[in-house]
Amino acid sequence: MGQRVGIIGGGQLARMMIAPAVELGIDVRVLAEVPDMAASLAATAIGDYRDVDTVLAFARDVDVVTFDHEHVPQEVLRALVGAGAAVHPGPDALRFAQDKLQMRAQLDALGLPQPEWAPISSAADLQAFLDAHGGRAVVKTPRGGYDGKGVRVVTAAGDVDDWLGERAAADPLLAEELVDFTRELAQQVARRPSGEMAVYPVVETVQRDGVCAEVIAPAPHATGRLAPVAAGIGRAIAEGLAVTGMLAVELFETADERLLVNELAMRPHNSGHWGQDGAMTGQFEQHLRAVLDLPLGDPAPRAPWAAMINILGGPVSASLGDRLSDALAAHPTVKVHTYGKAPRPGRKVGHVNAWGDDLDAVVYEARAAAAFFGG
Amino acid sequence: MGQRVGIIGGGQLARMMIAPAVELGIDVRVLAEVPDMAASLAATAIGDYRDVDTVLAFARDVDVVTFDHEHVPQEVLRALVGAGAAVHPGPDALRFAQDKLQMRAQLDALGLPQPEWAPISSAADLQAFLDAHGGRAVVKTPRGGYDGKGVRVVTAAGDVDDWLGERAAADPLLAEELVDFTRELAQQVARRPSGEMAVYPVVETVQRDGVCAEVIAPAPHATGRLAPVAAGIGRAIAEGLAVTGMLAVELFETADERLLVNELAMRPHNSGHWGQDGAMTGQFEQHLRAVLDLPLGDPAPRAPWAAMINILGGPVSASLGDRLSDALAAHPTVKVHTYGKAPRPGRKVGHVNAWGDDLDAVVYEARAAAAFFGG
Repeated sequence: MGQRVGIIGGGQLARMMIAPAVELGIDVRVLAEVPDMAASLAATAIGDYRDVDTVLAFARDVDVVTFDHEHVPQEVLRALVGAGAAVHPGPDALRFAQDKLQMRAQLDALGLPQPEWAPISSAADLQAFLDAHGGRAVVKTPRGGYDGKGVRVVTAAGDVDDWLGERAAADPLLAEELVDFTRELAQQVARRPSGEMAVYPVVETVQRDGVCAEVIAPAPHATGRLAPVAAGIGRAIAEGLAVTGMLAVELFETADERLLVNELAMRPHNSGHWGQDGAMTGQFEQHLRAVLDLPLGDPAPRAPWAAMINILGGPVSASLGDRLSDALAAHPTVKVHTYGKAPRPGRKVGHVNAWGDDLDAVVYEARAAAAFFGG
Repeated sequence: MGQRVGIIGGGQLARMMIAPAVELGIDVRVLAEVPDMAASLAATAIGDYRDVDTVLAFARDVDVVTFDHEHVPQEVLRALVGAGAAVHPGPDALRFAQDKLQMRAQLDALGLPQPEWAPISSAADLQAFLDAHGGRAVVKTPRGGYDGKGVRVVTAAGDVDDWLGERAAADPLLAEELVDFTRELAQQVARRPSGEMAVYPVVETVQRDGVCAEVIAPAPHATGRLAPVAAGIGRAIAEGLAVTGMLAVELFETADERLLVNELAMRPHNSGHWGQDGAMTGQFEQHLRAVLDLPLGDPAPRAPWAAMINILGGPVSASLGDRLSDALAAHPTVKVHTYGKAPRPGRKVGHVNAWGDDLDAVVYEARAAAAFFGG
């Protein structure tokens, strides 16, 4: 009946598009990597997103192609565009989310604030960078990292010899200044192909072991200069990189109140899960509206405060379902979102949203409910 | 992964259970009457809900059976129970929603306020009822009516001769006092098999041509005696009729501020659609929690006021999708819910929810957005 959105990737981000799609009358179809993934309810194909023929066949029956992740290779993306498919975000935007060196160069070209950085092809390159930055740096593989993987804090020229040994000289690593940040923030912006943007409130994110653990929306103490500066960075990146759909900009806030761009994501993002229950228009609905070039919804918060706590699989192998009843009984006002994934240790398997007038109470409620699912 | 809820019937009420089910990790499976129904995304079987074998086969793979409608025959329901299936609401509750004469008798037995009524097997019976009630009455077919069908206002003994002619004397019609009401209200209660109940705020419903057109939540001017009286009636019926899942009690408010029970529904109900966006826990999530005997969510409103406006198919045959973009552009704060149904004239094909601090603004916003879909 409705317009057809094809989502490549069957993870929880695709899964969480299903609910708003059903309500808006959008027909979502998922190309899942394997059976029984998080988004299996909407899976209409199983296959390898790196295979051009698989992706072209999937795209034939949809009005627009979008993504659960940013790992679809450029050559597959360009084959889609070449075949006439509407792809949002498109390959020219996605390359900046896929390659951190390209992203850093483009942000410099746009004059946006970010950590000092350099490409690193040798131990000598890294030594020079360390010498210029107080003997400490972060080195990243430009492609394929997520949730802290492919990221290493280094203090010696030889600390990434293993990575360098695996790479051609023409395929450098990225070295970044180790930013002395006071906290991490995230700024989300939705952008339509026609250019309309919707800017979410900047949020505070708390990472543990390189993985997002908590989000508070809006970020506390952001009512002054911070929120408009973050919003301006988000808008500039969405426009400057021609992003369509949801964009998340991970930011460092420094002790001297500067904001520096850490990472980008061009899809719904963990920092926006609070909005499913806490915003007038959640990011999953907004992403669908944006990629279909439908008018965007209001991104304003529905309550003064919202908190999102991730549920990670733990050493105890109980399923979420076993804990659900106790959590719901103790916390009738929170929303538990589950991803239908086996709770392997450290794996994101769900999250809890809470909202209300009092920040401490909201965070307490969300944490207490999430604790029922703790390993 | 999660618990499996089998829903008999593939209409919009089943459809609207899909979104909360996905988020809570509940596996919903639908027995649809035909292909391409509103809930087709979750349809795992197509078949006739009046056929015992079809329904038994469907129930084999689920943990609990519930319903999109109340039309499953008692013999099928009892066969399910006999086969060991968990059925909520069960046949002993559902018979009161299926047969208005049984409902009236049971409400009398519980001492609950309702219009005066009598079974009518002949024109003489109706004349006697008319004589006792000022020459006017409402006559209903006890079974099978909905949205104003099977209901007739009468003033003469011969006004239902056609209905009487089709029926056995042992199968009487229901005559009811024509209540001089000032407005219509609806009270929803969720009840678990273990007895826990969650009571929603009483809402005002506006009917047009026998079909629900608008709902305002909570009902204006209900802060005094009205709300607790309505809640008490809802609780008494949920307990007294052993309802499990969502119960809706349609009420007349009279000029002397009495509340009289008009109709019952034992499933999610049009009067509760506002809660998808306007309540801490919407009725579709609550129904799933209730029938699975999971702890119930908070039924409180999230905003001072919420309004729901139904979208009916009109004489112009444009699809909802054609109008969606204009409606969303003009009203970025409302939520449009669509049912994936062809927009035949008079058919409920979707609804619009709005909420906020100012009642007039909320109702205006919802009506204005819904008007984009008007025939």
